[in-house]
Amino acid sequence: MNLQIVPVHHVPEIAAGMNLAECLRDGLKASGLELADRDILAVTQKVISKAEGRIVRLAGIEPSARSVSMGRQTGKDPRLIEVILRESRRIVRIRGPILICETHHGFICANAGVDQSNVDGSDSVTLLPKDPDGSARELARILGCGIIVTDTFGRVWREGLIDTAVGIARVPAFMDFRGKTDTQGRPLQATILASADALAAAAGLVMGKTARTPAALIRGFPWEETNSSMAALLRAPESDLFL
Amino acid sequence: MNLQIVPVHHVPEIAAGMNLAECLRDGLKASGLELADRDILAVTQKVISKAEGRIVRLAGIEPSARSVSMGRQTGKDPRLIEVILRESRRIVRIRGPILICETHHGFICANAGVDQSNVDGSDSVTLLPKDPDGSARELARILGCGIIVTDTFGRVWREGLIDTAVGIARVPAFMDFRGKTDTQGRPLQATILASADALAAAAGLVMGKTARTPAALIRGFPWEETNSSMAALLRAPESDLFL
Repeated sequence: MNLQIVPVHHVPEIAAGMNLAECLRDGLKASGLELADRDILAVTQKVISKAEGRIVRLAGIEPSARSVSMGRQTGKDPRLIEVILRESRRIVRIRGPILICETHHGFICANAGVDQSNVDGSDSVTLLPKDPDGSARELARILGCGIIVTDTFGRVWREGLIDTAVGIARVPAFMDFRGKTDTQGRPLQATILASADALAAAAGLVMGKTARTPAALIRGFPWEETNSSMAALLRAPESDLFL
Repeated sequence: MNLQIVPVHHVPEIAAGMNLAECLRDGLKASGLELADRDILAVTQKVISKAEGRIVRLAGIEPSARSVSMGRQTGKDPRLIEVILRESRRIVRIRGPILICETHHGFICANAGVDQSNVDGSDSVTLLPKDPDGSARELARILGCGIIVTDTFGRVWREGLIDTAVGIARVPAFMDFRGKTDTQGRPLQATILASADALAAAAGLVMGKTARTPAALIRGFPWEETNSSMAALLRAPESDLFL
């Protein structure tokens, strides 16, 4: 397997209601790329959220008493906190300015995925797509390839961010080595790679954070089409040792 | 940037005292690959540990009373527990058969990186390299490329494993977007990608767990040579919210 990760440039600035699949197709073409069989397109959450109008102006937000109190605690704008709380199923940790939330989708990340960068107008923030798997399926249907929707998350225990899958369509979540044996013939029971997350991390290396490069073409990864869902990647809170 | 991740096949089975750099060079050649400027080689911890003789036979291990007790608690061989405890600075979590440890290097992972798969003889286990950055530097010196030593770790909150950096030489730990601005001209303060970990994750997709493919060539990633160290990637326990 020879894996290639190619940035998709020249995608126009995306706004609510725009046809993202068409814009990505244009970007692919302008980048000299054509989708082939077994190709996967990694697409940043940010452009999907923009196309889906998942943008909130803080000016129109009325913070609750809880948001005002948490705003004081964290030093954040209480209206931003209000938006974060609405996107959250649960606050997992809070310390200093850091707010780790579990989103309604079950993702555990800073600020419930609410993001202030790369949005038109200085008081606008983006929310994660409502149904990232659904967004991925829609892009996969139109473009005819596998789709991984990515977001950039912090990690526990390690510094620096890494791109992670938040939505998948067609491509499997895992690369399963169970049932196979190691070079000594011993079963490799534990080796189930979270390939969707690893591919997202790889794509994050070429998707510029400043340029109009909201997607990356992943070529050469072997996969069989499945009924994909992020649910498979999320560990049940009761069986997690750090929740 | 067009990123390529190419598996290095045909590396012989590695045993203690073998010249790993030479074996990797042979594998590269047999795979039709030649190292070029700015190439990075990802190498699994396992072959480095084997070459460095970081293998322990459980038959020779005398478990302490603590190991016997923890063996009962986890259902693991007390001698394996003893090896894990010797490799650990601290036990972070223990539940059922799962033992999350902080290694002497500061890595937080299952079983302190002690591994039973892919080792000669059924009662042998491998330990992580004593100084993975040092192992990486030695390979980088001989091969003349960037080196990322990888291991396959579980994650919090998500199912499935992902390859992670445990040693680096020459290549930077991070890709720093600080000081740059987003498409709206707003500073991208938080976007510091842990590129070494993302590259390790990508390499993990092509390095076979069963085949003799303990390395992957990473080509097309832009980097400047630095005095690299894993220390930069490890968050201080006192500033981590999940320790």
